Amino acid sequence: MSVADLLLEGDPRAVARAISLVEDDAEAGRTLIGQIYGHTGRAYVIGVTGAPGVGKSTLVDRLVSEARRAGRTVGVLAVDPTSPFSGGAILGDRVRMSAHANDTGVFVRSMATRGHLGGLAAATSDAALVLDAAGKEIVIIETVGVGQDEVDIVRTADVSIVVLVPGTGDDVQALKAGIMEIADIFVVNKADRDGADQAVSTVIASLSLQTFAEGEWRPPVLKTEAVNGVGVDRLWAEIQRFREHAANQQHDRRKASHESRLRGLLAQQLLEHVEKRLPPGEFDRLVEAVANRKTDPYSAAARLMSRALDV
Amino acid sequence: MSVADLLLEGDPRAVARAISLVEDDAEAGRTLIGQIYGHTGRAYVIGVTGAPGVGKSTLVDRLVSEARRAGRTVGVLAVDPTSPFSGGAILGDRVRMSAHANDTGVFVRSMATRGHLGGLAAATSDAALVLDAAGKEIVIIETVGVGQDEVDIVRTADVSIVVLVPGTGDDVQALKAGIMEIADIFVVNKADRDGADQAVSTVIASLSLQTFAEGEWRPPVLKTEAVNGVGVDRLWAEIQRFREHAANQQHDRRKASHESRLRGLLAQQLLEHVEKRLPPGEFDRLVEAVANRKTDPYSAAARLMSRALDV
Repeated sequence: MSVADLLLEGDPRAVARAISLVEDDAEAGRTLIGQIYGHTGRAYVIGVTGAPGVGKSTLVDRLVSEARRAGRTVGVLAVDPTSPFSGGAILGDRVRMSAHANDTGVFVRSMATRGHLGGLAAATSDAALVLDAAGKEIVIIETVGVGQDEVDIVRTADVSIVVLVPGTGDDVQALKAGIMEIADIFVVNKADRDGADQAVSTVIASLSLQTFAEGEWRPPVLKTEAVNGVGVDRLWAEIQRFREHAANQQHDRRKASHESRLRGLLAQQLLEHVEKRLPPGEFDRLVEAVANRKTDPYSAAARLMSRALDV
Repeated sequence: MSVADLLLEGDPRAVARAISLVEDDAEAGRTLIGQIYGHTGRAYVIGVTGAPGVGKSTLVDRLVSEARRAGRTVGVLAVDPTSPFSGGAILGDRVRMSAHANDTGVFVRSMATRGHLGGLAAATSDAALVLDAAGKEIVIIETVGVGQDEVDIVRTADVSIVVLVPGTGDDVQALKAGIMEIADIFVVNKADRDGADQAVSTVIASLSLQTFAEGEWRPPVLKTEAVNGVGVDRLWAEIQRFREHAANQQHDRRKASHESRLRGLLAQQLLEHVEKRLPPGEFDRLVEAVANRKTDPYSAAARLMSRALDV
């Protein structure tokens, strides 16, 4: 049987192999997605993001327990920046997931954050498709940070959860992260710490500056203590409430994500096409000319276009 | 006189206007870069990055003072995520910069982090070229977060400074940010807080896992209290030491940055070219087909390629 067939039966080794394929962005990965794509679109994708140190991994671990209690199978993708210092995925976080190590209804995978030819967001999106095709009903994507990559990843989720903690910097800076706009649900984790109520108030105050239309979802702000399991049942309930509320918009949201995905893929394939058609060394010669100020980057790009496409 | 001419004379209003042009990514912005590009490449670009709340803005403010004391003119680009909640650039940070408000040798500008057709890193890079052409000898780019955008921005800098604070999460998580690799200098700011020495030790321990060649730069780990101005003179001195040490590699580093820039520009122009050549509605029809699982994203991209380029 092929990897695709085994994967569609939910075989965990096939799932692992398939994610490696899409991570390496090999031709085989693209072929695989083509084979399984018709079996996707059923999983509900939960994005969880926040700065390092807010306790995302523990929170995700607890969310997995809630999902299991509700009888759902779960796939987790942890997008951790890989550092040569840590030697790949961070041990500390994944060890906590060992609570689910013997549960065949749970599949956990760390994604490397570099080395993806097609970009991290693309690889993560494909990995989520793999989990979806393998029958996981809930897919949780955990990302660190607030850069464009993370925003792109979280945008592909059906619901986006932003995790904060009390007392990181002053209030203004806690809100500076640029992720306020993408949150469907806010979580103030480590809520046993001083300043938890103030953090909640600050987020609510910020939301009050925004205008919500009649019937529009207004992101709730929840307190959790993930390490003690406090408040996670409430978070799970709010996720379900959002899912019902947003059922009508889900198609549009997914369509926007498909559009951005398609645009990115097209850009990548166009670049490959052009580089094949350029005379050997042409690209490097123009890079050198830009570095030496003999031409500017825009003129150089226009010249590459005309050389490759006869336009 | 044209914006370009006024800008080359250092006129601050022309600088502001030029940065707005490149931010809007209008044709006019590209033309402007073509006009001024031959006058760039002289500024020394310092990248400062770190999570929200570590005190980057204050540190940058103090670095500006050091640069001014050394007789250098300075441009600052603050890349702050724009939130509808905060109404644009964050007031708090920029207010601190008012110490330099009456100093004509200093130009400070916040960059919006969204709405850039060519990407944030490209807009920031062009804005740095504007400051360079306007005669600013030092350009400081301050970025929040640790996503790919930030990494791309910081890679365009001649020296990269990563700012940490004591006691944010446990040690493993403090090192999880994926920015260890890009740091030429580490700063533990708010060093009057508990755990500062431990934070320094942790970074040094992590560095000790890495192999440094004979004569290779080993990132120093400095303690600062930016609000009290403590340690910033030392940081400035280390920046000068790195500049001298890396003088030979600077060309290669800039060339790598030019290469990645050129590739990004080419991708963007190719997309524009293809979208012009497709039948009206073709792109949307394929997005819909992907959303409805009638085709997969890779096949859809391949079809768009063949429709647009006859390949």
